[in-house]
Amino acid sequence: MKSVGVAILGLGVVGGGTYKILTEHREFYRRTQNIDISVESVLELNKQRALDLGIEESKISDNIAEVVSNPNVDIVVEVIGGVEPAKSFVLAALHSGKTVVTSNKELFCKYWYELERAARRTNAGLYFEASCVGGVPIIRTLTDGMQANVVHTLTGIINGTTNYILTRMAREGLDYAAVLKDAQALGYAEKDPTADVEGFDAAYKLSILSSLAFHTKVPLDKVYREGITGISKLDIAYGEELGYVLKLLAIGKNDGAGRIEVRVHPAFIRKDHPLASVNDSFNAVFLQGDSVGEIMLYGRGAGSLPTGSAIVSDVIYAATHADHKYATFKNTQLAEKGVRFVTDFQSRYYIRFTAHDRAGVLAKVAGVFAKYNISIVDFIQKGEDFDRAEGEGEGIPVILITHTTSEFSVRRAVEKIAALDGIVQVNSVIRVEN
Amino acid sequence: MKSVGVAILGLGVVGGGTYKILTEHREFYRRTQNIDISVESVLELNKQRALDLGIEESKISDNIAEVVSNPNVDIVVEVIGGVEPAKSFVLAALHSGKTVVTSNKELFCKYWYELERAARRTNAGLYFEASCVGGVPIIRTLTDGMQANVVHTLTGIINGTTNYILTRMAREGLDYAAVLKDAQALGYAEKDPTADVEGFDAAYKLSILSSLAFHTKVPLDKVYREGITGISKLDIAYGEELGYVLKLLAIGKNDGAGRIEVRVHPAFIRKDHPLASVNDSFNAVFLQGDSVGEIMLYGRGAGSLPTGSAIVSDVIYAATHADHKYATFKNTQLAEKGVRFVTDFQSRYYIRFTAHDRAGVLAKVAGVFAKYNISIVDFIQKGEDFDRAEGEGEGIPVILITHTTSEFSVRRAVEKIAALDGIVQVNSVIRVEN
Repeated sequence: MKSVGVAILGLGVVGGGTYKILTEHREFYRRTQNIDISVESVLELNKQRALDLGIEESKISDNIAEVVSNPNVDIVVEVIGGVEPAKSFVLAALHSGKTVVTSNKELFCKYWYELERAARRTNAGLYFEASCVGGVPIIRTLTDGMQANVVHTLTGIINGTTNYILTRMAREGLDYAAVLKDAQALGYAEKDPTADVEGFDAAYKLSILSSLAFHTKVPLDKVYREGITGISKLDIAYGEELGYVLKLLAIGKNDGAGRIEVRVHPAFIRKDHPLASVNDSFNAVFLQGDSVGEIMLYGRGAGSLPTGSAIVSDVIYAATHADHKYATFKNTQLAEKGVRFVTDFQSRYYIRFTAHDRAGVLAKVAGVFAKYNISIVDFIQKGEDFDRAEGEGEGIPVILITHTTSEFSVRRAVEKIAALDGIVQVNSVIRVEN
Repeated sequence: MKSVGVAILGLGVVGGGTYKILTEHREFYRRTQNIDISVESVLELNKQRALDLGIEESKISDNIAEVVSNPNVDIVVEVIGGVEPAKSFVLAALHSGKTVVTSNKELFCKYWYELERAARRTNAGLYFEASCVGGVPIIRTLTDGMQANVVHTLTGIINGTTNYILTRMAREGLDYAAVLKDAQALGYAEKDPTADVEGFDAAYKLSILSSLAFHTKVPLDKVYREGITGISKLDIAYGEELGYVLKLLAIGKNDGAGRIEVRVHPAFIRKDHPLASVNDSFNAVFLQGDSVGEIMLYGRGAGSLPTGSAIVSDVIYAATHADHKYATFKNTQLAEKGVRFVTDFQSRYYIRFTAHDRAGVLAKVAGVFAKYNISIVDFIQKGEDFDRAEGEGEGIPVILITHTTSEFSVRRAVEKIAALDGIVQVNSVIRVEN
């Protein structure tokens, strides 16, 4: 039986979960995978935390050089997060010829090319299933399951915190701020929630997933990003009236002719879309391939054991395959020449504005839309006596949904509409995906 | 660049789709996978069919010995279906050291051990992603994505024909026979639909999937099987009233202590279960692992291109990995010693019977249930003046749903109830899954 020694860098939530899975399943993996995986070393400055997990003192280190020079360590699991010191530690491991398994989406999306170059040099493995969508095997599906397909679109709910917040706002009719506070108290959101609620976390993942799906480097700075902090409960309620659910979507599109579109933003989707019923902290990724058609993967995108499950599946994969596979595309820091990233993308739009109920205002609005060739599908105008919700403010709300049009046209039209006489303000502009 | 020669045995629906994918994507695979895959040979008695696909005459064969002795062929794709001649052909390929990729669930579930023995002998690969749930990468998820987990349950809608029929029966209020006829005309059901509608196809797949999920051989004859031919539109409608959707489910359970339960039968599931919205010919598999929690994979379970996608992903996988992996369990014909297959499984039950509306009948029925320790959750009794549906027959319908109880208790109770004075008949007994 093959013996495999693992080092875990960082015993936070995911590191602790990984340790628990590896130790509790050791006999199970001996029996089912014919490998004996032992945790040989942990790098953790909080020694007590390691001792509390039952780790022998001799295996606890505060020195990366000691960990990567340990001949009993074959695979280094990095679950520290962030760029430094994680990056230096991962590079040190790869330089020593150790295979690295990481859950670090930020590091990976920013320095993938550099990490992979280091891995190739020593023929070390570099695995990152846990970096995207926790326990859902989306990386392996893209690399080892969908590889027969030209993938045209990838649409995902890939951040658990924002999905939890939006689900509760919709279900309970609550404001963003109230749900965020509760989510923080319950551990669903961090003290500083920026990375989640502003869409950075989803953008990191989308950069990685779309690079794999489209076989070309999709740099982070090409991902259009908008968070959920400006979402009003009113928009969720009006969307519901029109048959839509609001989600923070990560969308990647590839036209197969060198044009790629990658964006993270709140979006309405129809209630009968498979992603519409992905609620709470669950995640899902919906893919369209030219042969397979539509497929969807659904599961927990975060958490100690789901993410630990992805880490350990990578450890087993690395330990039971004779050679390592690297990216299937030219993995450089920048995008490949010839690839164009679309910024003036096409979408439908939900627009809410408030107007003084004066004759002529709507005619002027219609004129602006006509000028930019934007046509309207759905339209709600509340009468003077409508049931004014808390926070609704002055004026009469008007909600409309456009046909498919271009992002830039909408931005220009909205600017013009906001400046019209009789318009109180344009409250919200939210994309509507098919 | 590595060159890989493929032979396709059988140019039916899946064989044709596989040929199309391989030839149309040849340049794409050169670019993204760094391999050049060419179709070097096809085995097809209907020569015209091969010529119509554009295959050169010199590559068309009617002789398996010729195909497997072709030095340009590295991988043999078997898409003939059924046991013979597919089995002899696959064994011939494996004996010649050719890697085999198959979509043949019947062959695979019945002779897996024999095929794998042959493959190990010549160190050939044996891949079968396409045998279960078409384009959905469920096999690879079990072997390469969920392998860190003890899988406790697997619940799937894994037959497209029956899901199509049940979806239409529910949506349109039609009878089984009418929808079947239509499904046959539209190509969703075969002329002889037995394998699908009696649950054989789902049982083949469940045998394979649960063997992988539970790391032990689950022989086909251990799978309890019941088809959808006895399903009445009345039951679908009454279930709907109670908040349930009817599906043909494949269920595998593993208690982790050597007790395994595998069954294919129609079952009611609650409308808010993720599987409830899997409609038409779509398939999905819902898994519960001890670390990852719940995950679900959704997509097309059949069809020329989705199944071809799975075949080709196996071809690429086999071509780009240095060594082959075989089953992670003792792959024999019979079940392992020590594994117990549960037949008296636990479930909730929907029971519909018709009674003469006589005082005392229901009391007698209640007495029978009490005798077998079966308690009732939901209960519908129609009054004398209920809106009698077509086919409802004599008597007053009574519908009830039990708490979790044992299969054998229900069978015995139903037998007793059917014999009671005042009971016209017990019309249906359908399991209700959580």
